[in-house]
Parts: sequence; structure tokens; C-alpha cells
Amino acid sequence: MPIARGYAATDASKPLTPFTFERRNPNPDDVVIDIKFAGICHSDIHTVRNEWKNAVYPIVPGHEIAGIVSAVGSDVTKFKVGDRVGVGCFVDSCIGCAERDLDREQYMPGLAGTYNDFEADRKTRTQGGYSDSIVVREGYVMSIPDNLPLDASAPLLCAGITLYSPLRHWNAGPGKKVAIVGMGGLGHMGVKLGAAMGADITVLSQSLSKKEDGLKLGAKEYYATNDPETFTKLAGTFDLIICTVSAEIDWNAYLGLLKVDGSFVVVGAPENPIPVHAFSIIPGRKSISGSMIGSIKETQEMLDFCGEHNIVSEIEKINIQQVNEAYERVLKSDVRYRFVIDIASLAA
Amino acid sequence: MPIARGYAATDASKPLTPFTFERRNPNPDDVVIDIKFAGICHSDIHTVRNEWKNAVYPIVPGHEIAGIVSAVGSDVTKFKVGDRVGVGCFVDSCIGCAERDLDREQYMPGLAGTYNDFEADRKTRTQGGYSDSIVVREGYVMSIPDNLPLDASAPLLCAGITLYSPLRHWNAGPGKKVAIVGMGGLGHMGVKLGAAMGADITVLSQSLSKKEDGLKLGAKEYYATNDPETFTKLAGTFDLIICTVSAEIDWNAYLGLLKVDGSFVVVGAPENPIPVHAFSIIPGRKSISGSMIGSIKETQEMLDFCGEHNIVSEIEKINIQQVNEAYERVLKSDVRYRFVIDIASLAA
Repeated sequence: MPIARGYAATDASKPLTPFTFERRNPNPDDVVIDIKFAGICHSDIHTVRNEWKNAVYPIVPGHEIAGIVSAVGSDVTKFKVGDRVGVGCFVDSCIGCAERDLDREQYMPGLAGTYNDFEADRKTRTQGGYSDSIVVREGYVMSIPDNLPLDASAPLLCAGITLYSPLRHWNAGPGKKVAIVGMGGLGHMGVKLGAAMGADITVLSQSLSKKEDGLKLGAKEYYATNDPETFTKLAGTFDLIICTVSAEIDWNAYLGLLKVDGSFVVVGAPENPIPVHAFSIIPGRKSISGSMIGSIKETQEMLDFCGEHNIVSEIEKINIQQVNEAYERVLKSDVRYRFVIDIASLAA
Repeated sequence: MPIARGYAATDASKPLTPFTFERRNPNPDDVVIDIKFAGICHSDIHTVRNEWKNAVYPIVPGHEIAGIVSAVGSDVTKFKVGDRVGVGCFVDSCIGCAERDLDREQYMPGLAGTYNDFEADRKTRTQGGYSDSIVVREGYVMSIPDNLPLDASAPLLCAGITLYSPLRHWNAGPGKKVAIVGMGGLGHMGVKLGAAMGADITVLSQSLSKKEDGLKLGAKEYYATNDPETFTKLAGTFDLIICTVSAEIDWNAYLGLLKVDGSFVVVGAPENPIPVHAFSIIPGRKSISGSMIGSIKETQEMLDFCGEHNIVSEIEKINIQQVNEAYERVLKSDVRYRFVIDIASLAA
């Protein structure tokens, strides 16, 4: 079995520490990847701290993976050694079932998460991208366009697709007024992607502290939600609102910003239930929906779209030894806009 | 000014009593209607008891109106004396605005409710269908097909369109699994209309007491929601759930009954907010939406559809002197399935 080195959580309350572990022997349909960069997603923190009550330690987090193919199995046709590739939030699913045919396998019960889950054999634990290599079936590996830098592409595999999928599903494009709530790792990708799709993007952020960035990345307007006038001024404005924040906000006030037939889409998961007043959705036929990453096909489509439009994440690159400090900064929203671990630092 | 006789509420806590009042002088684009029948909608009770905190007394309730045209203004082209017609929940709107063009004027702010509201002049109070005549602009009057009995057609104007519109909007039809929550005045119309559209209809009712009726009206299956096994057995089953009940139910359990991309549509308004867990909608891209009656064009389409499929409401006909007693029975769900007032009884 190939040996991988990385950083793992061994307990909900302890920092991540160096960890050496076995990857599975590659099968004929597997791709072996030298991981070069891994993004830090808020889900990594929720998982390793067992805030979702499903942690099985040790856990090597990381599902925003960018690297180079180092070996391919005999049945692999899509990739060759040296290819620039990415792996996202899942590494297997119930292939062949109805949902896969509809390209929405991300919503299938049989999904194998990239870490803290089981491989398709339902026995081997999966381990993620804060490590120097990974073995993944070729159907779950995606190509990263040549013109995109590998480091800033890593966050596309989760943050990018998390915004791209709902923007596409709810038809963001020319003539559509779209609000992105929250200007963080997810939100700033929504601004870039939505603007590239031709939609009219407004950022709704707690304050105006990141306004300059928001406008530079493609937003037409930028409003502070700590100013009550924002909710009066923008009432009935948006076709689509994508909410990336998991904090407690005044949900019904945001529903008031939708047009008739508008959709409010939740991609960040708040801890408490969202209290939806019937009178916030009945007069106006409004919807509140959830959305979760995207299918493999859609993720590749997103990467190709990013290649065409030269879109990557805004990142701060760190060495893996800084990961615990970076977690604390993520919790304070002190990053513009995504941490990416330089896996080469493992050798330091 | 023409004199009308009817029953009105004069106070939130008093029974409805006989009431004589003036209708406006007909304009050239008005239709004068001899009201023959008026359905009793739960909204009538909410309004006259000021449970929605907007009552301006006296109030003549009733927005499920069926009658015969007794006079038409000189500019009226769609109707002539003797025509069988209906009037629903609104009698005017901001004609010409964008929403009217999209045939969803029911969601416009300028809507003039059939009672407890103002006419288009924003001065004259509107009064509803528990009365012997009404004057309405022809654009807000609909034709009732000749083959449908006038009495059982009255509830189509609110209960019928309240279910027809979401069934159409969310594409109920062959191959679609649709659940109707609640088997009352609204729910039984959902069963009839959904089945006629070719959808596979399941009723989710508190108990099995109305099961025989449900299956007779077109449901394929009927489950009791007081049996917890219902929620296990039907998990992930429905493309669309239309919820007609305003009671406090276990909302997230119902969201669990949706398929991927399924929609839960609220047409009954519960008093308290609906607590939507993010994890009930994110994994499965599910939606919770509201829907409110339908446009005039869609209501006419619904009436024509009912004509083709011989659909009317199941009613219990009463004299207007029984209206207060009927209200008490509505509150106890003691009616199969809609009370309709025979306006001829006013003369008794």
C-alpha cells in the first residue's frame, strides 16, 4: 500500500498534527495524484471539531484538492501522468443509479465523501487533501484548465462549484438581479462566477469593509446589511439570492428582497432552523431552497467555464504547519478570501 | 346607487347579521351580477374575527361567488345578461403593470380584495359575496362552464384556483408523484384537480377517516400522518407536496418525503414561522415555497379545465341564516367539504 503523509485531527479538541497513513493500492480505473495544493473549507473545521457529530478519528481533512497525476491504472482513459487535476467533495457514488443519469449524484445517499467517510467498499475510511497523495477513481477526477494557476484553482473544487451550481440551476445570467449574501470564501466566488455569467450582482455583506474588493471582482452594487435602510431600499429587487452565511440573520427580511417568483438559496448551513413566515413566501410565490456542491459533470463544466473566463479564487497561501492558526482566522473571517495549503511545505 | 342585502360582521366578536348596503353605480366597463351562491372560505372567518389584524367593519365576507349577469355596461364585450359567471378573491389590480403582463397579478401590491379592502379608487370599501348582488369590472369576472352546477362551482373561485395554480406551476401531471396534505375544502380540490391532470395523487391526512372519499375523488393512496411509519415508508417519494393545513405540523418530517429537487408548497398559512432545518433542504436541493390563488387568466383556465373534466367542489348547501353555525363547524373541520350559502335564502 502506498504511504501518504499529511496532517490529521485525532480528537475534536486537539490541533491537527503530522500523520502518516496508507492509501489504497490503485485499481485499474484509479488515478494516483501528487497533491500540490489543498484549500481550507469551513466544513473541514466543522468536521474535525465534530460539530456535525459524525467524526471518526483520525481525520485528514481537505476536499479542495489540486495536483498532478503521478500514475494511472490500465483502464484509465481520461488522464495521463503529468495532467493537472482536481478532486472535490466526493470520491465515489452509486454509479448507474437514476440520479447519476440526471447528473445530480451529489444528492445520492451512496456518496463517498472525500474524508471522514467510507470508500465505495463501505469499509476503507477516506482521507482528504491535507496530504501529499491520493488515489481516486478516474470518474471522480477533474481536469484543471492549463491557463489557471494550480494553487488558486484548488478552492474551485468546493467553494467554486457550491456557487456555480445554484447560479446555473436558478438561471443567473443577463437580465437577472442576483444577490450574494456574505463576502467570504464562498461569496467572493459567487460574485466572480455570477458576473461572468452576465448576471447583475449585488453583494449583501454585514459592513462595507470589503466593498472595494466586491466591486473589483464584478459586483455592480454592494450594500451593508447592518444598515436597516438596505432592506427598505432593495425590497422586491432580486430574482435570486444565494446565502453563503451560516450566522443567524433576519431571514424574513431577506425574503422581502425577492421579486415575485424569486428564490432564496441556502448554501451555508446555519445551526438553528430557519423560521420562515408563511406570509414571507405566499404573497409572491417565493421559494427558499438548499443547494449542495454539484455533480462531477457540472464541476468539470465549472472548471472549463473558469478557464474561459480566467476565474480562480482569491487566496492566501500558507504552509501546512500554519493550518491550526489558519483555522482560527477562518472562524474570525480573517482571510481574503480562501486559505490554500502549499503541500510542498510538508517536506519542510 | 343600487341597494344590496347581505350578512355582515360588525365586530370581531359578534355573529354575522343581516345588513343592507349600497353597491356602486355601474361604470361602462362593469358587470352587475345577481349572486346565487357563495362559498365559505376559512379566510372569511380569519378576516371577520380580525385574526389578521386588518378588519375594517362592517364586513360582508365571501370571495367564492357564483351568479348570473343582470346588467352590463356599454363597454362590456365579454358578458351579456343571463351569463353564468364567477368572482373570486380580487376585483381589481394595477392593470398594465409588468405583473399583469406575466399573468400573475394576484401577487401585485395594487390588488383590490373582494371584501375588507378598497376598490381601485382606493376610497370605496369592497364588500363580498354573502349578498344578493355585486358590481365588478368585466376583466375580473369569469365564465362558469354550462355543464357545471352553479352552487358547487362557487368554491372553485378560491379553493379550486388555490390548488390548481401550484399544481400547474410545479408541473403536476403524468409520471409525477404529488401529495396533498389535508383533506378539507382545499385538499379535496387538490385531489380532484391533480388526478384530472394525470398526476399520481397521495393524500396525507391526520387519520384515515376520510380515506374512502379521498380514493373516490381520485387519490391513488391515502396515509395517516398520525402513524409515524408513514414518514418512514414514504421517505423520498414525492416530486411535489402541497400543504393545505395551517396547523402546526412536523415540517421537517414532511420535507423528508420529497425526492431530490422536490417542492413543498404552502397554501395554508400557519400562524407561527415554519422552522426549516438547512439539512432538510440542502442535501436534495429541496424547496419550500408559497402560492396564493391565481391570476384571472389562470382562474378562467381552471374553470374551463373543470368544465372539461366535470369537476366541482363537494358541498353542503346552507341557508344564510345558518352562517354563524357553519363557521363553528368549519373550525371543527366538520364539513365535507365546503359550505355554500344559497343566497335565495336571504329572501326567506
